[in-house]
Amino acid sequence: MQHIDLWSATKTAVEKYLTALISERTTSAQHIHRQYQNLWQDIGHVIKGGKGFRPYLVVIGYGKLDDAIVPIAAAQEMVHAAVLMHDDIIDQDTVRRNMLNVNGRYLERYQPYLPHHEALHYAYSAGLLAGDALLSEAYLAITQSSMQADIKMAVAGRLHHSIFEVLGGELLDVEASFISDITYDPMTISRYKTSGYSFVGPLHVGAICRGAPEQDFKLLEDFGINAGIGFQLQDDLLGVFGLQTDTGKSNLNDLREAKDTYLIKCYTGRLKPGSPEQQAFDATFGNLSATDAELAALKENIEASGARTETEQKIGFYYDQAVAALAGLTHPEQADELTRLVELLRERRG
Amino acid sequence: MQHIDLWSATKTAVEKYLTALISERTTSAQHIHRQYQNLWQDIGHVIKGGKGFRPYLVVIGYGKLDDAIVPIAAAQEMVHAAVLMHDDIIDQDTVRRNMLNVNGRYLERYQPYLPHHEALHYAYSAGLLAGDALLSEAYLAITQSSMQADIKMAVAGRLHHSIFEVLGGELLDVEASFISDITYDPMTISRYKTSGYSFVGPLHVGAICRGAPEQDFKLLEDFGINAGIGFQLQDDLLGVFGLQTDTGKSNLNDLREAKDTYLIKCYTGRLKPGSPEQQAFDATFGNLSATDAELAALKENIEASGARTETEQKIGFYYDQAVAALAGLTHPEQADELTRLVELLRERRG
Repeated sequence: MQHIDLWSATKTAVEKYLTALISERTTSAQHIHRQYQNLWQDIGHVIKGGKGFRPYLVVIGYGKLDDAIVPIAAAQEMVHAAVLMHDDIIDQDTVRRNMLNVNGRYLERYQPYLPHHEALHYAYSAGLLAGDALLSEAYLAITQSSMQADIKMAVAGRLHHSIFEVLGGELLDVEASFISDITYDPMTISRYKTSGYSFVGPLHVGAICRGAPEQDFKLLEDFGINAGIGFQLQDDLLGVFGLQTDTGKSNLNDLREAKDTYLIKCYTGRLKPGSPEQQAFDATFGNLSATDAELAALKENIEASGARTETEQKIGFYYDQAVAALAGLTHPEQADELTRLVELLRERRG
Repeated sequence: MQHIDLWSATKTAVEKYLTALISERTTSAQHIHRQYQNLWQDIGHVIKGGKGFRPYLVVIGYGKLDDAIVPIAAAQEMVHAAVLMHDDIIDQDTVRRNMLNVNGRYLERYQPYLPHHEALHYAYSAGLLAGDALLSEAYLAITQSSMQADIKMAVAGRLHHSIFEVLGGELLDVEASFISDITYDPMTISRYKTSGYSFVGPLHVGAICRGAPEQDFKLLEDFGINAGIGFQLQDDLLGVFGLQTDTGKSNLNDLREAKDTYLIKCYTGRLKPGSPEQQAFDATFGNLSATDAELAALKENIEASGARTETEQKIGFYYDQAVAALAGLTHPEQADELTRLVELLRERRG
């Protein structure tokens, strides 16, 4: 399985790059004040927890793994980590991937000094600064890489486009949870929150560095948009039916926090007005004090309604569409690599 | 007064650039979802409120105002706006420069849908995304400017350095307000929170674009560090003794929130243990429910102690040091411009 080798080799190379970078920043931070070191050490801790999926996509887009692509691939991982850090502030989470995130680590640090709610606020403030730091590092990594100047400019421009899209996706995702008189299509949210910066962006960045022909960009975009929507729908499904040991997060929070996903839209579309299921849904979904038993019952109702199966079929549809887009790619081994990747994604549990 | 002309010409050119940029982004945002437009319109509103001080320093460092420097100068303004947006989340402010900031504008937008504390949380989330957007725009503006590629790389590297410093300064500033068993020197905080990205960074960026000789960088750094510390000490003083009509913010919050500034260190150093003044200070400083009358009495005590005068002298000392650093600059008109700028800063009320 060549592609697993390439993935893990990419992950190793990017981790090595990031470890050296964070170590250098930690030293520089220490020269400012020893307390600033903590922030960089925390960044170093949490950034290692990822699967290195986006760097792998950069390498697939580029066609090989070499020294020149590593900082560019690492930049995508840093943007991803920054997005997660800021997302964790919006979602008020202190845990990510079964580990304390920057917020959680700072909460432990600040708790001896402050009442809980104040310690939490300043812990989020530290997470905010950590995300800012990584956004800035991502651009620096690109401008300092050994790629040609015109390629670096184009890569920076593409990274900007990804960030522009994901910020929009995040905003829509937030608003969809409480603005009821405006339509937010879950597919649009997935397209901008996930497909853009997690799939299309990394593939395009790799393709820019390769000097890929124009038509490949369109095909990679079609692939990435569809794969990303499938991925996000799957993420939302795992948020309700996944195991915490696999996903690294509670499978109750999305229901408690009224996360308005495709799965939920499928389910509410099937509810009979005034039915006991409708009443249970209204009483439980988005109710921060709903009990675990109430949430478990809601999950059973969702499953029994067929909404889970419908969502699984939709995920399959998007992944199929993604694979179909690959046919015209200039380099057939790139299509093979991405096809195998989709097979892995279909099977994922976390 | 040549320098006022150059300042206002720079401000006009940067505002024109930013207006066109934000307008373009607003249109792109609309293609994603009409709700994403709001974020860019708000960014456009608040970014116009600044004095354009950092772009002016870029132009001084560069030696002239031309089309090539405008995006580079605008990048400094965007980073500044991003820092303020994120600072306003940390400080939980909804007003800046006597206007609603992004948080405040989103609070109005979300309030019809949510209880106040939830609307506020999501309003801060929007402010968070707005700051991220501007950080990203700042790097893009540099990489897309018409400067030579090697200059753009160096400018991006310098911007990264400024951001690295200001994030450290922000973190230290936050922690100084509640971590009592670690020493946070107000001068160190001012050096990293203010001097770095607001003075030295813009001047160096301009000097990089000019291709200034090596020794000028050291002199500009000496100038910027001292001027920035003076500026921050003055800011802290205005935070207590300034008028809201001049500063655009309440002059009670810093005392209520126990902002541990040089002024406060001067004052507490003068307090006799157990004195009525000490007791009044302990009861009022950092007391979120202190009345306006109690805070007014505390201000009178601070003034009567001589701490205000001592701080004013310290500000004068740093501004003098800044001007003294200018003697060896290669271009005497640059020294003149910066000397006149310091005279303006000395007189500022907001």
